Amino acid sequence: VIDECTHHCGLFGVYNNPRAAELTFLGLYSLQHRGEEAAGIVSGDGRQLYQHVGLGLVSDVFNRANLDRLVGRQSIGHVRYSTTGSSVLKNAQPFLANFSLGTIAVAHNGNLIDVRRRKDDLENKGSIFQTGMDSELIMHLIARSYGNSIEERIEQALQQIKGAFCFLFLTPDKMIAVRDPYGIRPLCLGKLGDSTIISSETAALNLAGAEYVRDIEPGEMVTISKNGVTSANPFPKKKHSFCIFELIYFAKPDSRVFTRNVYMTRKALGHQLAREAPCDADMVIPVPDSANYAAIGYAQEAGIPLELGIIRNHYIGRTFIQPSQFIREFGVKVKLAAVHELIKGKRLCLIEDSIVRGTTTRTKIHELRKAGAKEIHMRISSQPIRFPCFYGIDFCSEEELIANKMSVEQIRDYLELDSLVYLSYDGMMEAAAGEGPPSFCSACFNGNYPITVSAGANKYILEQ
Amino acid sequence: VIDECTHHCGLFGVYNNPRAAELTFLGLYSLQHRGEEAAGIVSGDGRQLYQHVGLGLVSDVFNRANLDRLVGRQSIGHVRYSTTGSSVLKNAQPFLANFSLGTIAVAHNGNLIDVRRRKDDLENKGSIFQTGMDSELIMHLIARSYGNSIEERIEQALQQIKGAFCFLFLTPDKMIAVRDPYGIRPLCLGKLGDSTIISSETAALNLAGAEYVRDIEPGEMVTISKNGVTSANPFPKKKHSFCIFELIYFAKPDSRVFTRNVYMTRKALGHQLAREAPCDADMVIPVPDSANYAAIGYAQEAGIPLELGIIRNHYIGRTFIQPSQFIREFGVKVKLAAVHELIKGKRLCLIEDSIVRGTTTRTKIHELRKAGAKEIHMRISSQPIRFPCFYGIDFCSEEELIANKMSVEQIRDYLELDSLVYLSYDGMMEAAAGEGPPSFCSACFNGNYPITVSAGANKYILEQ
Amino acid sequence: VIDECTHHCGLFGVYNNPRAAELTFLGLYSLQHRGEEAAGIVSGDGRQLYQHVGLGLVSDVFNRANLDRLVGRQSIGHVRYSTTGSSVLKNAQPFLANFSLGTIAVAHNGNLIDVRRRKDDLENKGSIFQTGMDSELIMHLIARSYGNSIEERIEQALQQIKGAFCFLFLTPDKMIAVRDPYGIRPLCLGKLGDSTIISSETAALNLAGAEYVRDIEPGEMVTISKNGVTSANPFPKKKHSFCIFELIYFAKPDSRVFTRNVYMTRKALGHQLAREAPCDADMVIPVPDSANYAAIGYAQEAGIPLELGIIRNHYIGRTFIQPSQFIREFGVKVKLAAVHELIKGKRLCLIEDSIVRGTTTRTKIHELRKAGAKEIHMRISSQPIRFPCFYGIDFCSEEELIANKMSVEQIRDYLELDSLVYLSYDGMMEAAAGEGPPSFCSACFNGNYPITVSAGANKYILEQ
Amino acid sequence: VIDECTHHCGLFGVYNNPRAAELTFLGLYSLQHRGEEAAGIVSGDGRQLYQHVGLGLVSDVFNRANLDRLVGRQSIGHVRYSTTGSSVLKNAQPFLANFSLGTIAVAHNGNLIDVRRRKDDLENKGSIFQTGMDSELIMHLIARSYGNSIEERIEQALQQIKGAFCFLFLTPDKMIAVRDPYGIRPLCLGKLGDSTIISSETAALNLAGAEYVRDIEPGEMVTISKNGVTSANPFPKKKHSFCIFELIYFAKPDSRVFTRNVYMTRKALGHQLAREAPCDADMVIPVPDSANYAAIGYAQEAGIPLELGIIRNHYIGRTFIQPSQFIREFGVKVKLAAVHELIKGKRLCLIEDSIVRGTTTRTKIHELRKAGAKEIHMRISSQPIRFPCFYGIDFCSEEELIANKMSVEQIRDYLELDSLVYLSYDGMMEAAAGEGPPSFCSACFNGNYPITVSAGANKYILEQ
Repeated sequence: VIDECTHHCGLFGVYNNPRAAELTFLGLYSLQHRGEEAAGIVSGDGRQLYQHVGLGLVSDVFNRANLDRLVGRQSIGHVRYSTTGSSVLKNAQPFLANFSLGTIAVAHNGNLIDVRRRKDDLENKGSIFQTGMDSELIMHLIARSYGNSIEERIEQALQQIKGAFCFLFLTPDKMIAVRDPYGIRPLCLGKLGDSTIISSETAALNLAGAEYVRDIEPGEMVTISKNGVTSANPFPKKKHSFCIFELIYFAKPDSRVFTRNVYMTRKALGHQLAREAPCDADMVIPVPDSANYAAIGYAQEAGIPLELGIIRNHYIGRTFIQPSQFIREFGVKVKLAAVHELIKGKRLCLIEDSIVRGTTTRTKIHELRKAGAKEIHMRISSQPIRFPCFYGIDFCSEEELIANKMSVEQIRDYLELDSLVYLSYDGMMEAAAGEGPPSFCSACFNGNYPITVSAGANKYILEQ
Repeated sequence: VIDECTHHCGLFGVYNNPRAAELTFLGLYSLQHRGEEAAGIVSGDGRQLYQHVGLGLVSDVFNRANLDRLVGRQSIGHVRYSTTGSSVLKNAQPFLANFSLGTIAVAHNGNLIDVRRRKDDLENKGSIFQTGMDSELIMHLIARSYGNSIEERIEQALQQIKGAFCFLFLTPDKMIAVRDPYGIRPLCLGKLGDSTIISSETAALNLAGAEYVRDIEPGEMVTISKNGVTSANPFPKKKHSFCIFELIYFAKPDSRVFTRNVYMTRKALGHQLAREAPCDADMVIPVPDSANYAAIGYAQEAGIPLELGIIRNHYIGRTFIQPSQFIREFGVKVKLAAVHELIKGKRLCLIEDSIVRGTTTRTKIHELRKAGAKEIHMRISSQPIRFPCFYGIDFCSEEELIANKMSVEQIRDYLELDSLVYLSYDGMMEAAAGEGPPSFCSACFNGNYPITVSAGANKYILEQ
Repeated sequence: VIDECTHHCGLFGVYNNPRAAELTFLGLYSLQHRGEEAAGIVSGDGRQLYQHVGLGLVSDVFNRANLDRLVGRQSIGHVRYSTTGSSVLKNAQPFLANFSLGTIAVAHNGNLIDVRRRKDDLENKGSIFQTGMDSELIMHLIARSYGNSIEERIEQALQQIKGAFCFLFLTPDKMIAVRDPYGIRPLCLGKLGDSTIISSETAALNLAGAEYVRDIEPGEMVTISKNGVTSANPFPKKKHSFCIFELIYFAKPDSRVFTRNVYMTRKALGHQLAREAPCDADMVIPVPDSANYAAIGYAQEAGIPLELGIIRNHYIGRTFIQPSQFIREFGVKVKLAAVHELIKGKRLCLIEDSIVRGTTTRTKIHELRKAGAKEIHMRISSQPIRFPCFYGIDFCSEEELIANKMSVEQIRDYLELDSLVYLSYDGMMEAAAGEGPPSFCSACFNGNYPITVSAGANKYILEQ
Repeated sequence: VIDECTHHCGLFGVYNNPRAAELTFLGLYSLQHRGEEAAGIVSGDGRQLYQHVGLGLVSDVFNRANLDRLVGRQSIGHVRYSTTGSSVLKNAQPFLANFSLGTIAVAHNGNLIDVRRRKDDLENKGSIFQTGMDSELIMHLIARSYGNSIEERIEQALQQIKGAFCFLFLTPDKMIAVRDPYGIRPLCLGKLGDSTIISSETAALNLAGAEYVRDIEPGEMVTISKNGVTSANPFPKKKHSFCIFELIYFAKPDSRVFTRNVYMTRKALGHQLAREAPCDADMVIPVPDSANYAAIGYAQEAGIPLELGIIRNHYIGRTFIQPSQFIREFGVKVKLAAVHELIKGKRLCLIEDSIVRGTTTRTKIHELRKAGAKEIHMRISSQPIRFPCFYGIDFCSEEELIANKMSVEQIRDYLELDSLVYLSYDGMMEAAAGEGPPSFCSACFNGNYPITVSAGANKYILEQ
C-alpha cells in the first residue's frame, strides 16, 4: 500500500550538444523548485555513460570539476524532493545500471502505484532491489523484457506499470522520453540549434536559450538518436488528466505547462475568485510569492489596490538549522514579515493559492493582527485540498490536510479570520482550462482518482 | 586617500537577556541584507567576553554549539559586506581587544575618513595594526585616551575621528551605542521586557519581538548598564544628513529608518515619479524585489495595471559558483526570468530604484525585448548616481557609475529604451522626507559631501 | 577477463551484543591496514537492517551520530582498498539488498574469477547490475537460488562461483560467515562473553577484548543465530592454499592468521634469511615498519647489531596532497628519513620483505648513499614477486612487477646495491609453515595458481 | 604568573629561493612533531608580505591554491602545539602586523616569562592586545623602540624580555633569526644553493635537500638580506642551558640539535642505563616509537635480544573522535597492541624515555600482563620529571606529574612493575653531553631554573 509521502521531481535532457552536461545543469537550476534535496546528471558520449549525483541543491552538487567529467553530447538530469534518511544518496537519480543490452540510465518524475506487488513478483523471479526508487523497478522490467532494441524493451516494461510518470532514459547513444497516457505530469520538447531538449517545464527551455517546440503528448514515447526524433504511442488511450495543482501552485510562473502559461492561469483564477467572492477591503495582499499572481488578478478584477505588504526573507534556506526551541518559535516570522505601517488599522483581503496544514497560515494571520490589521479576510484561489495525491505531489499524510478534517467554517474559526472563501470547483476548472475544455486531474480536491489500484491497496482509489 | 570600495554593515545588540546571543543571532538574520560576507557575535557575562566570528551568512557562521558558548546576558553582533581576500577573517567583527581598562569589543557600521593619516600618527607613537578595520583604529584611540571610565575614553576617542559611523561597544558589563553627529547611518533603540535592544533597523526589532522605543539621535552616545540607560552628547552639533539611499534601496521595506517606514517611502517616491514622468503603457513592471514598492506607488498613481512580470529565482545564492564562461553568460537570465506570455506585444513601464553600472539592466531589457515587448519605458525612483559614497555604501569605483560618464539620453541609448526618466531632485527629496523637512545626505546624487577631509585626501570632499 | 588490480579488504562481525556497531567500528579500526579507501557497517535488530558506508578511513566515515543510528545486537563491517573514481561510493560495502526472502547484507574479502561470464549469464536472464562488486554478483545468485532458508540459498549460490573469498552475510537475525575451500584469505571466530565475533585477523579480536576460538575452516560455512553457532561444509574439499603474502607482508604483526603469529613468522623468515644469505655488515637496518620483524630475526641469527636507522614520518596520510612536481620529488624522503650520523661510513645490511615495483626502493637506497653509507647490501625475506595475484592482493599490473621483467642481478644493478639476495623458495615455505607442512598459495612467486579459470579468461591460470 | 601549559613549536625559514613557500611547507612537514594544532606561513616578495595560517596539520592547512598565493623569494613558517578553544585561530603564527617602519611578521618557539607584567606596562602606555601570543608582545616592543632600522628595533625589544626563545622575523626584504642567550631551544642555519635556510632542527634541512652550516649561537641575531648573512650578539653572555629534553624525547631522531645527533644520544642514554641498571630479562622491548633508540642501546650493552613487541597503530590521528565512553576505554589499546605469542611467559625489560602522568603507562603494563608476560621490569632513560617547564615544553600542570607526587618506589607500585629504575642524573647528563661538557637545562628534573622571574611571579623560579 502507498503509505509514504509521494515526491515531486524535475527532468531535463539534452541530445547532441557539445556542452550537454552544462546545459543540463542550467536546466536543473531552473527546475530547482521541483526538488531541492538531491540532484544528478548522467551524460553519454556514444560509448559510455558518466554519472554524478549528490544530496542538496543543484549548485551544491555540481561544480566545474564534476561537470567536466560528464563528457559527451547527450545528458539527462534530475532534481528530487525526498524524505531525508541516512541512505538517501542511494535514491538520487538518474539511476544507472547494466543489463543484457548494455548500460542505461533513467530519471523519473511521478509516482507508480501497485509497486509493492510488482516488486514481490520480481523478487519471486529472483530479482534483487537495492533502492526504494520506481526507477529501479522500471529497469528490472526492461531487463526482463524481450526484443533486441532498447525501445522494444522500454515499451514492454511500461505496459506492465501503472501510475503517473514521465521517464527520461539515456543509453550511450539514445535519449528516450515517455509520458504516461493520462498526461498527469508535464513534459515538453525544445530545440536549441541542432540540439534536442526535453524538460518538465518551459522555463528551463527559456533559461537554456532553447525554443519550445511542443509538449510530449500523453502516452507518447519519443526516441532521439542519430536518426532524428521519432515518436510512438505504446499505450492504450486514456482520458487526459493534467495535474491542476501544477498550474495552481507547483510550476514556475514563467513556465507553460499543459500548453497554459502559469502566470496567466493564476491571474485568471484570481479574476474568477474576485467575481465569486468579493471582499470589502482596503487592500489586497498576497501570501508571497506563489499567490502573487492570483492576487494581481483579484485586485484588478475587484478594483482594490494591491499591496505587497508581507515581505519574504530571501536568505531562508536549508542552512537555517534552528538552534533551539527559542528560535524555532520565530520560524514563520523569520520567513515572512509584515509591514506594520501599511497594515495598521486596515481591512485586508489576503490571497492564498491553497492551504495544506493550516498551521503556518494561522501564525501569519496572527502576525498581521499584531501589526494592527482591523479586518482580515482570506480568499483562496483553489478548492480545499481534501484528499492525498498518489501521482507525484507531496502533501504528506491526509491526516495532516486541514480540509480533510474541518469544514470551511471550522477552518475560518481555526485561522481566526473575519471571512474565508475558497474558489468554487467549476470556477477553478474553467479558469484553469482557459479556452480549452477542462481535462484535469482534481483528485486532491474531489477524490476522483483517474488511475485505480488493485483491491486492498488503497482505500481511496480501489479498482471497481 | 580612500581608494577602496566602502562597505555596508549591520549592528545588533542586546542588554540584560538570558538568551542574549540567540536574540542577537535572530537580529543579525534580519539584517543579513546589510552584509552577506561575514558575521560575528561577542557576548559578555559580567566578567568576561566570548567571541565567535566567521565568513559567510549568519546561518553559515552560527550553529547550536557555538551559540551555546556565547554565554552571558549581553551581546553585540555584526554583519559585514566586504571585499574578498585570503586574510579576510581577520576583518570580521565585532573586534575584540584587551587594553588597560580590561577587555572590550566593538562593531562598526559606516566609514571613517582620514584613516591613513590617523594610523600614521599612531604608528609613529608605537602602535601596531593587525587588521584593516576602522574598529581597530578606534580601539587604539580609546587605549591611548585618559580617564578612568570606558565612557570617558570612548568620548575622547570619538572626538578624534571623522566620518559616518554607528559604533556598538561591549565590555563585560556595559553596552555603549554611538551615532555620528550627522546621523548618516540609522541606529535605533528597542525594548523587550527588561532587555534593551540596539539595532541598525527596526525590522530586526520586530523579528526579535521587541518594541521600537526611539532612534539613537545623531551625535548621541547611549550607555546601557546596571544603572539603566543613560545618554550623552559628546559631539558638536552638525546638520543632519541621513543617507537617503537607505530609504531608496538599502534598508528592508518592513523597517523604519530615520523615523520613516521604508515601504511607504518607496511608494511615495513611486507616486511622485508617476506625477512627474507619466508613461503611455499597458502595464507597470518592477525590477524585483527592491523596486516593487515604488512600482506599486507608480501604478496606483498612474492607474496602469501592475504586473510582476519578471520572476526572480530564489535559489540564487553564494553557492552559484559559475562553472565556466558558457554558464556565466546566463548570469542575469538565471536570476530573473520574464513571463513571455504576459509581455508579448505589450508596452511596458519598467520601474527601477536606481542604476549603478547599467550592465545588468541592459541585459534585462534585452531579455524583455526577446520575450516580445513592443515598447519598453523605464522610470527610476531616484536621481542618477553620479558620485561615490564615502560614508558606508559600496558603489565600487566612480568610474563604474554609468551616470558619472553618461547623460540620461546616453544612458537611454545604451540601455536601448524607448524612454528613460529619473525622478527629479526636489521630487525625490520631498517624497523621501514626507511630512518633515528634507535633511538628507544626497552626496551620491549631487556631490555635496557633508563631511570634508584634509587637503589632498580626496578630490571630491576637500576641506575648504 | 581480469584486467584490473584486485583489491584487499577486511571483515568484522558481531552477533548478540548490545553495542554491536561500536564493537564493529573498533574491529574495523584494527583492520584498517586491509583497506584504507572505504568503510561500512550494516547492523540488524531482528526486524530490519541499518547501513552506513562512506569513503575514507574508518575514523572519517563513522562518528557518534551515525554509529547511534546503527541499532541492533548484530553488525557486520568492511574496510576496502579500492581504485578511485567518481562513483566509487557505490562500491563501498557491506552491500545491502532486498530479495524474495527479505533483506540481506554482504561483505566480501577476496576476489572471484570468471565474473564477467557469470554476469553475462545473469544479464541474459534479466538481471541488472548497479555496481562493480563481487558482492552484487553473489546476491543475484542467492536471489535466483531455491530453498526456503537463507542458508540453502547461500550454499547454492556459492557452489556456482570460483575464486578466493571470505563472505560475511547479515540478515535481520542471522550472521553467516563463509570461507572458500582453498582457505586463501584468513577468517577467524572469536567470543566476547555471550557474543560471537568474526574477524579477518585476530588483532581485531584482541582490540575488541574478545577471545580467539578458532579459524573458520577452509570450505566452512558458519551460521550464527538464536540457535547458536552451527557449521556446514557445502564445498568439495580442496588442497589448502593459504596466502603466504598475508604472513610475509600484509597482516598485522600482532595477528595470528592461518594459526601462525605474524610477528614470529616474520622473525623466522629473517632467521632463515640470515642462515641462507649472510652479510658482512656493520649493522642490520629494516625498511620500516613491515620489515622490522624479519630484520630482528636476521640480526639475532647473524649476530649483527640491529639499528632502526630509517625513520618513518608518522604524519604521512591521505591528506598529503602533493602540491606540485617540485614537492612530489620529495615523496620518498618525506616518508622515510635516514639517520646520517649512524650510517656514515658504515656497511649496511638492509632488510626488506618484498620489492614490488622497485622505484621507491631505489630512491631509498640513493638516500642512504647520500647519507654516507659505505656499502649497502639488501636481503629480502621472500621470493621475487613475478606473477599477479588474482585472489585479493593488489599488486597492480604484472608489467609493473620488477621481478617479472628483470633477473635478480638486473634488479641489483637497477637498485645500485652492493649485493642483493632473496630468500629461497624452500626456505620461505618452511619458515612460513613452522611446525606444520607448507600448504600455501605462492602463485605470485611461482605462478602455480590453485584456482583455474575458463579458457580464454587469463593467460596465467587457464583450466587444462 | 605563568599558569598555563607552555607550548612547543617549530620554525622554518627560507631566504632567496623562487619556491620559498613550498620549501617552507616541506620544512614544516618535517617539523610537524613540534606542533600539531596550527600551522602558518608568511612569504615576502620585496614589497609586501603574504600570509596563510590555519588550524590542523601542515597537510590540512596548506594546499596548492594557498601555497601559490604565498609568492616571493622569502618565507617563514611555524607549527604550533596549543590548547584548543574557539578563538584559537587568532593564536596561529606567524604573527603579522603593520608598524611605523612598515609590515613585519614574526614566528616564535619558546616561552617568555614575566609576560603579564610586560603587557600591563604596555597597556598602561596605551597598547591594545588582540591575542595571547608572545609574538604580539614582541611586536609591541619593536613598535615602541627607536632607531631607523628594523635590526635596531628588534635588538632593543629583545633586551626588554626574558625567557626561552627563538624568533624568526620577516620583512618584505629581510629575514632575521634570534636565539636567546641561554640557547634553550635549538635553531640552525642551512644552505641550499644560493638560498639560506633557518630551522628548529636539522631533519628539516635534510628533507629540503639543504646542507647544515652551523647552529645559530645562543644570544646570536642573524640578519639575512641582499647584503648577505650578518651576525650580531645583542645580549649579555649567559651560561648555556640547552634543553636536555629535546635530546631525550622531543626532537626527531634523525635531527642534530645542540650539535648532537638525537638517535645516537638516545642510544648512549640506553647504553648508560644498561650499565647502571641491568635487568635479568628474556627480551628488551621499547615503548614505541620514541624509546626505540634507547632500547637499542640498552639491548646492545646488556646483550639481551631486542624485540619490537608492542605494535603501534599508524592510523591514530586527530580524526579519532571517540564516540563514547565504551570506546574511550579502548584508548590505549587502540594505539598500542602487544604481540601475545612473543611475550607469553617471558620476562620483559621495558624501555621508556620518560613518564609524565603515568596513567597511560599503567594501562600499557596491564595489557602486557594480560598478554601473559611473566615479569615486567621497566628502565627509564632519564631522571624522573618532577618540575614544570617554563621554557617551551608542555608538561601541563605539575600536579599531573607523577614524579612530583610519588617516590620511585611508589611509582613502581602504582604501575605494578616487578622493578623500576630511572637513569641517574650524572649518567643522564654525561650520556647526553657526549664528548663535550654538560651544559644543559635540566630544570624539569632538578628544579634548577636558569632564568629567574620577578618576585611573586612563580614559586619555583624566583629571582634571589
